[in-house]
Amino acid sequence: MELLNQTLAKILPPDRASEQQAQQRLDNLTKPPGSLGVLEDIARRLAGIQRRPRPELPREKVSLVLAGDHGVVAEGISAFPQEVTPQMVLNFLRGGAAINVLARQAGARVIVADIGVAGPPMEQEGLIACRVKSGTDNFVLGPAMSRQEAVKAVETGIDLLHQQVKERPALVGIGEMGIGNTTPSTAILAAFSGLPAERLTGRGTGIDEARRRHKASVVARALQVNRPDAGDGLDVLAKVGGLEIAGMAGILLACAAEGIPVVLDGFISGAAALVAHSLAPLSKEYMLASHLSQEPGHAIMLEMLGLKPILHMEMRLGEGTGAALVFPIIESAVRILNEMATFAEAGVSQGE
Amino acid sequence: MELLNQTLAKILPPDRASEQQAQQRLDNLTKPPGSLGVLEDIARRLAGIQRRPRPELPREKVSLVLAGDHGVVAEGISAFPQEVTPQMVLNFLRGGAAINVLARQAGARVIVADIGVAGPPMEQEGLIACRVKSGTDNFVLGPAMSRQEAVKAVETGIDLLHQQVKERPALVGIGEMGIGNTTPSTAILAAFSGLPAERLTGRGTGIDEARRRHKASVVARALQVNRPDAGDGLDVLAKVGGLEIAGMAGILLACAAEGIPVVLDGFISGAAALVAHSLAPLSKEYMLASHLSQEPGHAIMLEMLGLKPILHMEMRLGEGTGAALVFPIIESAVRILNEMATFAEAGVSQGE
Repeated sequence: MELLNQTLAKILPPDRASEQQAQQRLDNLTKPPGSLGVLEDIARRLAGIQRRPRPELPREKVSLVLAGDHGVVAEGISAFPQEVTPQMVLNFLRGGAAINVLARQAGARVIVADIGVAGPPMEQEGLIACRVKSGTDNFVLGPAMSRQEAVKAVETGIDLLHQQVKERPALVGIGEMGIGNTTPSTAILAAFSGLPAERLTGRGTGIDEARRRHKASVVARALQVNRPDAGDGLDVLAKVGGLEIAGMAGILLACAAEGIPVVLDGFISGAAALVAHSLAPLSKEYMLASHLSQEPGHAIMLEMLGLKPILHMEMRLGEGTGAALVFPIIESAVRILNEMATFAEAGVSQGE
Repeated sequence: MELLNQTLAKILPPDRASEQQAQQRLDNLTKPPGSLGVLEDIARRLAGIQRRPRPELPREKVSLVLAGDHGVVAEGISAFPQEVTPQMVLNFLRGGAAINVLARQAGARVIVADIGVAGPPMEQEGLIACRVKSGTDNFVLGPAMSRQEAVKAVETGIDLLHQQVKERPALVGIGEMGIGNTTPSTAILAAFSGLPAERLTGRGTGIDEARRRHKASVVARALQVNRPDAGDGLDVLAKVGGLEIAGMAGILLACAAEGIPVVLDGFISGAAALVAHSLAPLSKEYMLASHLSQEPGHAIMLEMLGLKPILHMEMRLGEGTGAALVFPIIESAVRILNEMATFAEAGVSQGE
């Protein structure tokens, strides 16, 4: 609990003076004011996060991918068997998954961690072995994990960020692999939002409508059985969360504490963001949204966080794929602030 | 007219067999089928456009930026004075504009052409001087240009593509600079859609509501005076179009004829796409949409073309900035098809 508390205590608001100076420069660049839209918002936010009026391009870009399993798969809520989680971990390590390809295009490093895969320990070259528990327990029967385990998984995420991301400025994207993990994510969203499970439950990796309705009833049952306290992020996480979700929440908190911009992926990373936000509301100031997922609850999550997705690509894969796709856009925003000419420099007449 | 007719005659549908083979491979890659959404659509479309099941990364990426002026600025429809068009051309040549910065990030070359700037001829190193006319005529008083000039401007765009984009495979983005050019674009959209100017007219680079209403009345008047024939793309272009719009239409047609994927930018390039589409409906099969502009008519244009925008960033700058931002996403789509492992290769269990 000490590492978590230290981390929470270190989270400050981004530097508003740097944001203001960045905005002033943006308004003097050779374009109608505000005409680069969200690109200008990102540039200004990065100035605040990096605490300098002219943010720099990241020297290190990292996609952190956390793998964990879920006891609730026993309820038949996923289209894929649980064995796919470790199989995909191997695929990540060999470079054959979507996140490997997209990170390569973005010039980012992929770090893969086993924070809670089920079954025998995985020992593989290149894999960060930091398993807190071999999969969560089935949360329709009781809590997914103990509060101690939840804290440990969050702190594992914090450690991971510290150990794997040493250069500054850095740019981090989070991602995950865990068969069944849209179910705990939906439960977390239902707990924090108070909205009915039926409205929030989607098709995950591709289940049919009958299975989707069953999944919604599983989420509703989990909330009834566990009664998570929406005012206590660790309670929600322990009772209806997941280990990779906890680890991602830890990474989000550590990025906020370290002043590193961190890009959310889709629905599951959004659940981690809700947890981080409940533990430290300021943490959302360090988060950037990437894409709008096909999961129906994702738009609601992003609205709760006050974040706007950049990409509308109907993606629903996870792994950090959406986050990696926006890395070049974030770099573009930094370059706009640093490389564009002002009206005065270029001798261009200003508008009215 | 001969070059235009030759170009139109060369436009074939993309290769459906390559598309189908690409789709088969996409469905066997280690991800739930369809879970990469639009990224998979782009990959499949590029297979068809490049006429090979495994499309290749572009060897050449080019942002073609066309500059032209508009007689209708005499009606007071823009927030910026006309002198800004040549001033921004100089800014492009010196590398200080937004498109230069975003193209640099994307690894693309910027080509700038004066196809119709008003005032004395511009002779500048690096500028392609291909002016058809020194700005259009004020189209509330009569046609913007003659039909012959419209054809010449379209053919100038075709020539430009041939001269400037020699490598294959290539990836092209189009952009423009022309004070006042949301007005002809709105008139083109109104002519092709039959929708009222009032509904389609936006704030351009940032005019207030009173000026916006005036601009809508100018568009309505232009349509009344000129009565463009929606069944004749060249008639619409000549009567209420612009020279840079005509040139972009030519580039779009040439890309379709050459089998080059071409990325649209915002509202003005969308008007060029409507013209190209009216001259050769198949040309839209070679177009990719980039962002959804803040101009209210842009979504309507893209719907008419059956294209979905990838980026939602509230941009309204033009220059090809939105197009350049999606270059890395298009490259990502190609890489997905070429670099991801299949279920069999990776030893991952498939879903139901």
